[in-house]
Amino acid sequence: MQVYDTTLRDGAQREGISYSVVDKLAVARLLDDFGVGFIEGGWPGALPKDTEFFRRARTELNLKHALFVAFGATRKADTAIDKDPQVRALLDAETPVVTLVAKSDVRHVERALRTTLDENLAMVRDTVAFLVAEGRRVFLDCEHFFDGYHLDPRYATEVAATALAAGAEAAVMCDTNGGMLPSAITRVVGEVSGRLAARLGISVDEAVAKLGIHCQNDTGCAVANTVAAVEAGVPHFQCTANGYGERAGNADLFAVVGNLQLKLGLPVLPDGCLDQMVRVSHAIAEIANIAPDTHQAYVGSSSFAHKAGLHASAIKVDPLLYNHVEPEVVGNDMRILVTEMAGRASVELKSRELGIDLGAHPEALSRVTAKIKQLEAGGWSFEAADASFELLVRAELNGGVTRPFALESYRVQVEHREDGAVVSEATVKVRVRGERIIAAAEGNGPVNALDEALRVALVKHYPELSTFELADYKVRILEGSHGTGAVTRVLLETAGGNGDWTTVGVHENVVEASWHALVDALSYGLSQQHLPA
Amino acid sequence: MQVYDTTLRDGAQREGISYSVVDKLAVARLLDDFGVGFIEGGWPGALPKDTEFFRRARTELNLKHALFVAFGATRKADTAIDKDPQVRALLDAETPVVTLVAKSDVRHVERALRTTLDENLAMVRDTVAFLVAEGRRVFLDCEHFFDGYHLDPRYATEVAATALAAGAEAAVMCDTNGGMLPSAITRVVGEVSGRLAARLGISVDEAVAKLGIHCQNDTGCAVANTVAAVEAGVPHFQCTANGYGERAGNADLFAVVGNLQLKLGLPVLPDGCLDQMVRVSHAIAEIANIAPDTHQAYVGSSSFAHKAGLHASAIKVDPLLYNHVEPEVVGNDMRILVTEMAGRASVELKSRELGIDLGAHPEALSRVTAKIKQLEAGGWSFEAADASFELLVRAELNGGVTRPFALESYRVQVEHREDGAVVSEATVKVRVRGERIIAAAEGNGPVNALDEALRVALVKHYPELSTFELADYKVRILEGSHGTGAVTRVLLETAGGNGDWTTVGVHENVVEASWHALVDALSYGLSQQHLPA
Repeated sequence: MQVYDTTLRDGAQREGISYSVVDKLAVARLLDDFGVGFIEGGWPGALPKDTEFFRRARTELNLKHALFVAFGATRKADTAIDKDPQVRALLDAETPVVTLVAKSDVRHVERALRTTLDENLAMVRDTVAFLVAEGRRVFLDCEHFFDGYHLDPRYATEVAATALAAGAEAAVMCDTNGGMLPSAITRVVGEVSGRLAARLGISVDEAVAKLGIHCQNDTGCAVANTVAAVEAGVPHFQCTANGYGERAGNADLFAVVGNLQLKLGLPVLPDGCLDQMVRVSHAIAEIANIAPDTHQAYVGSSSFAHKAGLHASAIKVDPLLYNHVEPEVVGNDMRILVTEMAGRASVELKSRELGIDLGAHPEALSRVTAKIKQLEAGGWSFEAADASFELLVRAELNGGVTRPFALESYRVQVEHREDGAVVSEATVKVRVRGERIIAAAEGNGPVNALDEALRVALVKHYPELSTFELADYKVRILEGSHGTGAVTRVLLETAGGNGDWTTVGVHENVVEASWHALVDALSYGLSQQHLPA
Repeated sequence: MQVYDTTLRDGAQREGISYSVVDKLAVARLLDDFGVGFIEGGWPGALPKDTEFFRRARTELNLKHALFVAFGATRKADTAIDKDPQVRALLDAETPVVTLVAKSDVRHVERALRTTLDENLAMVRDTVAFLVAEGRRVFLDCEHFFDGYHLDPRYATEVAATALAAGAEAAVMCDTNGGMLPSAITRVVGEVSGRLAARLGISVDEAVAKLGIHCQNDTGCAVANTVAAVEAGVPHFQCTANGYGERAGNADLFAVVGNLQLKLGLPVLPDGCLDQMVRVSHAIAEIANIAPDTHQAYVGSSSFAHKAGLHASAIKVDPLLYNHVEPEVVGNDMRILVTEMAGRASVELKSRELGIDLGAHPEALSRVTAKIKQLEAGGWSFEAADASFELLVRAELNGGVTRPFALESYRVQVEHREDGAVVSEATVKVRVRGERIIAAAEGNGPVNALDEALRVALVKHYPELSTFELADYKVRILEGSHGTGAVTRVLLETAGGNGDWTTVGVHENVVEASWHALVDALSYGLSQQHLPA
């Protein structure tokens, strides 16, 4: 089985993605941690950034599992192979493997490439043979293979056969426009294997073993299409992390690997790699600067989360009855969500997850449930804000938690001055342990200025505050679909000595919403410091 | 073919969704516009909001295509059918159709439901027969059907057979834990049809025609699994709009319908409905308060977008070579994206899309391309901000566009007062047509206050400003993965007489980023007013 990743080349064509060379090196390290066999790093002949990537990768990366692959095109039409600078650049990348893309749909040969069908085959033959003679392992990506096969099965097969006869290790059937369904994939793999076997004088089993699959997701079936091809005997599959790619994306590496390994029992990854799935998926999302899809199969933060009251009560009995795999196997966790639909049972379970037994305090449980329903009606959400939830529960349990300080007022100002400078400053007035403190600070934005001013005010009484760091700040505008007018919801992630915690604030004013989340963040962090370990 | 939608019941279990009754009525209207046959509106016996929904739906909605379905459970164990208030509530919903859920996995019967296998069958039989006698069409959702079938095929089949024998119109095989792959779906549908035919004394074709399919997406294959079942002969399929649902979600209604109708040529929707797909998908996302998935099959704003230089130049030749279906068929559009990867060719194409011929001005084209690369390196993105892109192009083409005003300075302040009130106010100093104007205004947040102050300052010279409305405001914090420190990107959507337009602003300070987007929004709107029509 050949796990071939193209996150850094085809995946980088997703709208919104723009990797630096340093980003690409980091992504390659993560993919190697996940145990993929091949990392397609880019197109050195076309993009200077990719040439630079391969140069640095050679010296800076020491991969445990993967081989690097340079991607490129077959030689130009009517050009000698040793006169083609793009082919030269593929060699200069010094990768053990090269993947070439070639047209396999007659319409694309004639209308986009504007050459003859025979010259296209010669380009495949020459380029594969040249690279093989130079000691490279070569894969051929047959672009638009399935559409081409539908129109002219003989020619599409001939492109694959030409590459294999010239020494290519695999001919990869690409569903470039992404319009396929699994049943058609299964059928075409069978037909192509038979045609190739006849053409090359090998057995059908030998033929299918020389095929690869590369699926785009325009029917929402890229994962299923990839799995269907592997079930039909294809040993080489090309995916991208999180399914990143042009248009509707590519086949998601993590779902494909999870399905092959956990559902079909195929030996896909080296031992000890599968449980890196969630970490690698989320880290790549961070580098790509794309919010992780919370509902992504296997790796989403919601993908083992349960909120329905129907389920929440039964989950107490046996969690495995409600999960398709054990979440730990892929590095995920089961979570119980706190929402109006789940009611008391979920609030109780969630509290227990946080180490608080509300079952023994039915009145506090009722007050917490009522309070959460009321806040949720106003746009609050505790699903991602465990720390705010815990503060709320402890407050009801203790008859009002003792906050580390009380606010009197704050004021924050942003000024764009005549000279173009933009400055933010904040003043807070708070009471801490009987003392009234006024403090001011500047920041790179209004929320940062407030955060800084609050820290100045509190640091004398709570020196441990200095170890808390704002790790992430998310803003969501909630449209007034519930008749309340638009409100802003802020999620704040704070990192401190005791790990990370997330808090929430909601208000029509983004600064006030941020203030709520800030106050919860500091209160929670301080309360953890003062709890028994 | 029965297109059955459960967006309002199973789909509402997605983390983060909380519909009001008004929301549910609006979603039902949209689903009917799309031409689904059945709308599962909720669980009247369990949720007061759903009882209310059915009451109002009866009088307020006049559906063109769909029938309403009330969802509920079979009667309680060891309880007479006419003594069960949950079953009573199903009748009181007064829908022509009722869908009952029943356990079909022996483990769930014994461990979660805690009753006997025989009593579970009696519950199915009694409840179906009772509702049929009351004049309802009844479907039975066989919960955990595939896991149950794997463990005890005889019992799982018997649950379905019992319902059908008691008068149910369809027995729906639910992949409740979402762990299935298409090949297994195909196999099980075949086996179950055979077992049901033998048990009920009907033909296999008659048996498969009484089956339904309901897939969760935990393997990333819910769409493919649903399509596989339909290909195997199952005529009833349950989906949710945009695949909303618990954990990794449900099968996406739009991808399933698109695949069945456009790939398999099955008559799924009434005439004239398919091209409502994008509108209905996005409107439901808005009501659900979930940002639309830009990469969703068929309906995503990126799903027919092309950015690769490789493609962008060939697309000029023949767009259909690069799209799996014509985007207009589902109400979508092809778009050309402006990014560093695409370079000059994409900038030129994109400009042409906006009615500007940069091909005739190669130097301006170079300047625009260089400027965009530089801004993108700093976190700007024009992919979703056509108006800012157009201002930039026109500025380079005209040697600097004449902005409607020049900023001298602004100041915005947010105060949380001692009495708890939160107030925002802004002052702007601008020059308009030679006049220096100072204006101030309050707002419900800092950006709104700035917007209001700017309008006060400009309205004398540009009275048409009063017709512009801020339609949406999105904030994204871009982490410093490119070595530049975190910056904030603001996207602003403005609605005016000439349609909607989107502008972008980027800065480390959220207020300054918003200011950039605001200035572009007003500049663009005014420039459109003064252009020849």
